[in-house]
Amino acid sequence: MKKHILVIPGDGIGPEVTTWGKAVLEKIGQDFGHEFTFDEALMGHAGIEATGNPLPDETLAKAKASDAILFGAIGHIKYDNDPSAKVRPEQGLLKIRKELGLYANLRPIMLFDELLDASSLKPEILKGTDILFFRELTGDVYFGEKKRSEDRNTASDLMIYSRYEVERIAIKAYEAARVRGKRLCSVDKANVLEASRLWREVVQEIAKQYPDVETEHMFIDNAAMQLVKNPKKFDVVLTANLFGDILTDEASQIAGSMGMLASASVGDGTGFFEPIHGSAHDIAGQDKANPLASILSVALMLEISFGLKEEAKKITDAIDETLKDGYRTGDIADANTDKAKILGTTAMGQKVLE
Amino acid sequence: MKKHILVIPGDGIGPEVTTWGKAVLEKIGQDFGHEFTFDEALMGHAGIEATGNPLPDETLAKAKASDAILFGAIGHIKYDNDPSAKVRPEQGLLKIRKELGLYANLRPIMLFDELLDASSLKPEILKGTDILFFRELTGDVYFGEKKRSEDRNTASDLMIYSRYEVERIAIKAYEAARVRGKRLCSVDKANVLEASRLWREVVQEIAKQYPDVETEHMFIDNAAMQLVKNPKKFDVVLTANLFGDILTDEASQIAGSMGMLASASVGDGTGFFEPIHGSAHDIAGQDKANPLASILSVALMLEISFGLKEEAKKITDAIDETLKDGYRTGDIADANTDKAKILGTTAMGQKVLE
Ligand SMILES: CC(C)[C@H](C(=O)O)[C@@H](O)C(=O)O
Ligand SMILES: CC(C)[C@H](C(=O)O)[C@@H](O)C(=O)O
Repeated sequence: MKKHILVIPGDGIGPEVTTWGKAVLEKIGQDFGHEFTFDEALMGHAGIEATGNPLPDETLAKAKASDAILFGAIGHIKYDNDPSAKVRPEQGLLKIRKELGLYANLRPIMLFDELLDASSLKPEILKGTDILFFRELTGDVYFGEKKRSEDRNTASDLMIYSRYEVERIAIKAYEAARVRGKRLCSVDKANVLEASRLWREVVQEIAKQYPDVETEHMFIDNAAMQLVKNPKKFDVVLTANLFGDILTDEASQIAGSMGMLASASVGDGTGFFEPIHGSAHDIAGQDKANPLASILSVALMLEISFGLKEEAKKITDAIDETLKDGYRTGDIADANTDKAKILGTTAMGQKVLE
Repeated sequence: MKKHILVIPGDGIGPEVTTWGKAVLEKIGQDFGHEFTFDEALMGHAGIEATGNPLPDETLAKAKASDAILFGAIGHIKYDNDPSAKVRPEQGLLKIRKELGLYANLRPIMLFDELLDASSLKPEILKGTDILFFRELTGDVYFGEKKRSEDRNTASDLMIYSRYEVERIAIKAYEAARVRGKRLCSVDKANVLEASRLWREVVQEIAKQYPDVETEHMFIDNAAMQLVKNPKKFDVVLTANLFGDILTDEASQIAGSMGMLASASVGDGTGFFEPIHGSAHDIAGQDKANPLASILSVALMLEISFGLKEEAKKITDAIDETLKDGYRTGDIADANTDKAKILGTTAMGQKVLE
């Protein structure tokens, strides 16, 4: 198979972790006889520094021309503490999602048995958890009109959804539920929000086409609670952009660490694969970041964009083995970890490659 | 002291649990020589059934004339699954918050040592956690304009904040932080939302007046994660209406159960005290609900609205003792609980009274 992959390292720990995602892709290419070619491009703070634009035109053009995109992380503390900054790194990520029509963000909550103890949740609560989130990614309060009054004393964002936006992601989520645990939980705040009431109406309609899937509707506050209380009760979770952002980060604690979770954004165009974690500037450049989420992003890419299941499994198996051998990065180490087996980014990447 | 308290039982398990909140108030009145008088009023589904209105005029008038309000719970499954219902129980709660100017919702996350094992989080993660949430309660996407297009295919809610709304609750939160752990974490999504950028600007300004309090700004997705990962790191948490709704429900798992958490809504008018839990129709009328959150609401009322600290402490001590004696309701029982000590609503209420 011949595929062209665009690597967008982005900000903070992005470059460090994508290095290992890319290395694993190259290795898979060699081992399985695929021809993977690569290009690189800027986004976020890195894009602003080089061109003044968080999503340079060249990056977007390269993205559209590639078969899949491996992304690192975005954001910089400098903008976080300056609420009045007009140009912001995150705009690059939001714009590429919109431009490529990446309306469905899939976030599988994978649980490596070896990491049961790395979580703040009790192992017996966690064991057996297997959730696939479908987060809507190109609508909601993220993309609705933003306003600031002239005196700057009032600010607003429009939380808005249209029927077709809910339909297309609901269908994707139901299709996935059908070949998984046949349970779908749609999360909204329909007791307060009009956008959520439309969401619930549409999901109720789509649900009729999937009588083999059991549908549940849950309010976001309750879902945030149930996810900690009893994560096993979830199979496929379908939700809007903002609620999905919150719930999936929360759910990362189920997997022991954000450093273990990857996500796939798909829709109309090129698929986009990235870790769930952020740019983590506090540890950037220190060889401390966990590269496993980036490597898992590559596994998702192989499976979802290229249909290469065996190759994807090879990667998750390699990670599993590395963990079984006792190797950990700092974020997933616990009191029982052999200190000598706590690795930096490079050493961990190397171990998985081997 | 002479005080007039309005009891609004509301829906579902509301009537069962407020019965015990009220009983405890009466007992405190007797023991400490206060003259508490009571009245009762309808709200939510109960209000709709009786008058067609989720907040009957009579209820609002009585609320304004009282010194404090003890509320039960709101909501009915019937409306949850009918997104097109025009009249909804929750409107009653939202309207009374707005009408009474209850802009600050205080949600203390109390941790009874006896319940460390009832949580899904590991005891060592929990131990020592003591968080006070300040949730803004009369603004945000809850009260912004709601729209539905004529073809009903597009729906929106306006997420909106004005400077004064952020200022007044920020001041309350900083005042509280000053006499607690001197740390305040403000939660927003300023990397995406304009309303959050205003929020952050205002909090940064107010922070300058409280140099003795350490301020941190955190994105909501990260906060939802940190709350599970390391709840001890939080002291006072200040956040908007929607984010507060989500985070405090999530945080209820820290306390072992929603059945253990009370909240106080304060602002311009009469204080309003209620459990965090909902109407729980699935167990309503079965003598299964945990009355402790309602009893704790009464403790908050005594302390916050009436300044009666000793009386409030008497209540939390009584609960502590009851738990130490091994008594539990179903929601806070665990594998080690003596089956004979798992009590219903009535028996648990009675135990605390004794
Ligand atoms: C960086 C930020 C804009 C982004 C989001 O909120 O979508 C991130 O948190 C994510 O989840 O991918
Ligand atoms: C019932 C509902 C409208 C309410 C809210 O979202 O504010 C509830 O969840 C709460 O937290 O008090």
